Amino acid sequence: MSQSIENDSVGIVVPQVAHFDEPLALTSGNTLANYDLVYETYGKLNSDASNAILICHALSGHQHVAGKHHADDKQVGWWDNMIGPGKPIDTNRFFVVGLNNLGGCHGSTGPSSINPETGLPYGSRFPVVTVKDWVDSQARLSDRLGITQWAAVVGGSLGGMQALMWSMSFPERIRHAVVIASAPKLSAQNIAFNDVARQAILTDPDFHNGDYYQHGVVPTRGLRLARMLGHITYLSDDGMGEKFGRLLRNEKFKYSFDVEFEIESYLRYQGDKFAGYFDANTYLLMTKALDYFDPARRFGEGNLSRALARAKASFFVAAFDSDWRFAPDRSREIVKALVDNRLPVTYADIESAHGHDAFLMKDPQYFAVMRRYMDRIYREVA
Amino acid sequence: MSQSIENDSVGIVVPQVAHFDEPLALTSGNTLANYDLVYETYGKLNSDASNAILICHALSGHQHVAGKHHADDKQVGWWDNMIGPGKPIDTNRFFVVGLNNLGGCHGSTGPSSINPETGLPYGSRFPVVTVKDWVDSQARLSDRLGITQWAAVVGGSLGGMQALMWSMSFPERIRHAVVIASAPKLSAQNIAFNDVARQAILTDPDFHNGDYYQHGVVPTRGLRLARMLGHITYLSDDGMGEKFGRLLRNEKFKYSFDVEFEIESYLRYQGDKFAGYFDANTYLLMTKALDYFDPARRFGEGNLSRALARAKASFFVAAFDSDWRFAPDRSREIVKALVDNRLPVTYADIESAHGHDAFLMKDPQYFAVMRRYMDRIYREVA
Repeated sequence: MSQSIENDSVGIVVPQVAHFDEPLALTSGNTLANYDLVYETYGKLNSDASNAILICHALSGHQHVAGKHHADDKQVGWWDNMIGPGKPIDTNRFFVVGLNNLGGCHGSTGPSSINPETGLPYGSRFPVVTVKDWVDSQARLSDRLGITQWAAVVGGSLGGMQALMWSMSFPERIRHAVVIASAPKLSAQNIAFNDVARQAILTDPDFHNGDYYQHGVVPTRGLRLARMLGHITYLSDDGMGEKFGRLLRNEKFKYSFDVEFEIESYLRYQGDKFAGYFDANTYLLMTKALDYFDPARRFGEGNLSRALARAKASFFVAAFDSDWRFAPDRSREIVKALVDNRLPVTYADIESAHGHDAFLMKDPQYFAVMRRYMDRIYREVA
Repeated sequence: MSQSIENDSVGIVVPQVAHFDEPLALTSGNTLANYDLVYETYGKLNSDASNAILICHALSGHQHVAGKHHADDKQVGWWDNMIGPGKPIDTNRFFVVGLNNLGGCHGSTGPSSINPETGLPYGSRFPVVTVKDWVDSQARLSDRLGITQWAAVVGGSLGGMQALMWSMSFPERIRHAVVIASAPKLSAQNIAFNDVARQAILTDPDFHNGDYYQHGVVPTRGLRLARMLGHITYLSDDGMGEKFGRLLRNEKFKYSFDVEFEIESYLRYQGDKFAGYFDANTYLLMTKALDYFDPARRFGEGNLSRALARAKASFFVAAFDSDWRFAPDRSREIVKALVDNRLPVTYADIESAHGHDAFLMKDPQYFAVMRRYMDRIYREVA
């Protein structure tokens, strides 16, 4: 029996592909001669194209933000709880766009795509891309969709960095930036975790310098470790303690290297699942985009206030108290720089036991403040 | 030119080996038929053997706690700043013993030792050992050295767990337990980090199910990753930020997967160095000993107060505020259980930017409280 589509779902969506032939100059100095961006849209663009909202994804995200791909689809989009008819980001009001970023592995041009110059997957030849490059490519997608100015650019974590970058790269094209569980730049500890994850992939004998596609193998071991490690940093110590504690997988200790504790079983499962569908080169690229993000860097002593002086948007910044990956203090750095520039900013410091992952969870307080802010955006549109 | 020996050094020390032929029954149900323990001693045992202090090592530690092995030795023992003539643990007053635990790779019987039954390294046949097993083996070493009762058993991190275990396993044989930067049991997050480290080793193609010795290889990749990851958890976010921040290795970004940030270079160096001398099987065993440690487990609902009801020692418990691996709250759990039992306890909550590693660092406040507590122990001896 086919599963029904809930009333508050955007329903069945079909991903679309936009092909771009104009070369894209990248931060690294390289150029992408041409590329595809895969995207999905939900809701209807109004006559003056003033109700468009761009959703930027985080490390392992993609264009499938809400709804299902077919009636039997058991998996809904990654932010389906937030986006749909009557939901905080209400598709009865807004035209919502999700895309897969360059370098991704869900349809947009990335390392596993065929390089037209060689007829082989890009692999190691795919250039490093930055948050700025993504925002540049997203601006081209905006042109293609006839959106001169986004009502809002919205993202959590690495997605929040893109929203922040939009406000600086294209100040005229964004009315609101919604920056959730994010940071103005990574800390040494953040970079350190990313580097361990990358080293796990880069030193996997099946990595073959990034050209594993031609060898018929995948660096599963490395990607699995990277995901296991990442997962620890997405959850809070307390949240993990509440959910797993020291629960045993079996009644008694086995005194072996097999799984003993539930938390081990959970992490290994998450690692195995992820390694089965995600591309290791994409994982490397996404972590590098995180590391390099530092819009204040070229201003005196990394002055974020000066970097944001260009911005004209209004801002909604939210952080979760148990998030130790991008703790509330990191969001407050953003808020301070916005206040320094007398830019309108609403800041929410939200209680949650879910750590960094809280930005993906349905939580009454979080959803209430999101809804209130989106209502405000809609009043300006309507 | 040979390096001089400082006045406050214990000088040149020679490791000694104690061989035991009496089988040791292990927590796992296995038995070690016979084994060696390698140890070092500093200072002189007094006539009534009342001034003996046992130093228990942590994950990657060993018997070489203080001094040098030869005049040109550039590396001093791992706690040389704490132990020596006039130092907080004063070898003019105390007879100090350091040993390498069973399962180690510095001379005590471990996975890389020759299994007398097969003539080959134990490898995968070496049994899992627990903190309790270590304490049992340390008690036998005490007998051998003629020490009926330790003036103190001292340790940081996993070493602190051994001090705590001594107070429960052999309440009559320990007057003081000095438990630094430790915890009564691992949290789910602690176990999770350990499991990622283990999975890195276990899935390294060079691991060969633990019997890599016969294959002429070493699971260097896995051990390197494990150490890199461990290192992140030993340092504090702030301390790492102060030391490395976003400092670049080169003037400009290379936009590649090479080292960009100093923190990456530092971690990879630490990983490479460690993987060059430490045994991967020992690393696995030490992390399992951490995971299994939970002396309260067999009491009603994991009641630590009931577990410590057997103890008779006086306690010194210390924690460091930036230690997020074993945060001060974990030490306070121990303190609470001791207070519940009306056992004498001194607790120090020490400010430090060095995270978990602070217990190995020379810090005025930390050394002052250690010195004061050791002075008190000495007054009882003298």
